[in-house]
Amino acid sequence: MPRPSLREQIIDAAVETLHRQGFNGSSVQDIAEAAGAPKGSFYNHFESKEEIAVAALDRYWERGASAAAILEDKRLPPEQRIARHFAALNEAVSKGRFQKGCMIGNMSLEIAGQSPKARARLATLFGRWTAAIESCVKEAQAKGSMRRDVAARDAAEFLLNAWEGAVLRSKLHRSPGALAAFERAAATLLAPT
Amino acid sequence: MPRPSLREQIIDAAVETLHRQGFNGSSVQDIAEAAGAPKGSFYNHFESKEEIAVAALDRYWERGASAAAILEDKRLPPEQRIARHFAALNEAVSKGRFQKGCMIGNMSLEIAGQSPKARARLATLFGRWTAAIESCVKEAQAKGSMRRDVAARDAAEFLLNAWEGAVLRSKLHRSPGALAAFERAAATLLAPT
Repeated sequence: MPRPSLREQIIDAAVETLHRQGFNGSSVQDIAEAAGAPKGSFYNHFESKEEIAVAALDRYWERGASAAAILEDKRLPPEQRIARHFAALNEAVSKGRFQKGCMIGNMSLEIAGQSPKARARLATLFGRWTAAIESCVKEAQAKGSMRRDVAARDAAEFLLNAWEGAVLRSKLHRSPGALAAFERAAATLLAPT
Repeated sequence: MPRPSLREQIIDAAVETLHRQGFNGSSVQDIAEAAGAPKGSFYNHFESKEEIAVAALDRYWERGASAAAILEDKRLPPEQRIARHFAALNEAVSKGRFQKGCMIGNMSLEIAGQSPKARARLATLFGRWTAAIESCVKEAQAKGSMRRDVAARDAAEFLLNAWEGAVLRSKLHRSPGALAAFERAAATLLAPT
């Protein structure tokens, strides 16, 4: 297997560092050190911390591909795809011992006001994510396995945002309580009436 | 009216600065400057940025007293108290042009891992807040104006976390869309079935 390029190593190190310490809590020096690279060579690959943050967000999103794929898995009924999608995300949050939260949510709160580029990318990622959930909600509503009195778009937004809020709480309390409450409430509240 | 003490001025300045710039994005110097105080006198009143952050959280919580009072206003039916509570919070978020979000949510994501003191205070504040909502949910469930198949605690947690997630999105997009979707979905989903 070829050795990953330094650029790739820096992106991977940035995902770890930014996810753990946040944008303002991480310096370019921290990221370069985590990648085992001299600070000077960081700047051969990235212009700024803002630029590496955007690359790290894309890498983080790619790493979530298996959870995203559940939403597209047509072998499962759509309401189960949604439930399993969030269960998979919760498992990942749990593996990180609830210490890191969701990097997309973290960055939204932390740097949306500071970095127009990061803000645009975060909006794109949330847009794709919402659309994938909305598509499952629509399918479930059409076949009668999910209530129809909430617009599919509202239900998708509400679910995703409720999950981000639950992750925030799980990070604060370092416990799965809020994530479990999310899974229980989401399933019951969206069931057909 | 007596001139507010320097300590009070520093706390007020810290709420503004920390809410706008975040914990890691604000220095003690920034806070002292916003208070019109020399950095040296900051340390006459507070030991560290962590200590002022906890005091600022308490002040922020006190400022939310009018929204909190809605949850206790027994002249209103309990389900309306919940709806008006969140509507009042959304109005406050909107007045800040969606740029600052909820300081309690922001701090939870940003510094829960860095500061055990801030983390404990944030957990206390979220605990009080959840309990106040839960009390309304219980009352509404008892009188049949809210569905009973979700435990009152789960419903309260879910609502509060969904709101925090919606605020996160409103901050990212600088728009009220997620807050409006929250209000619509929350009312419908918790109505009696």
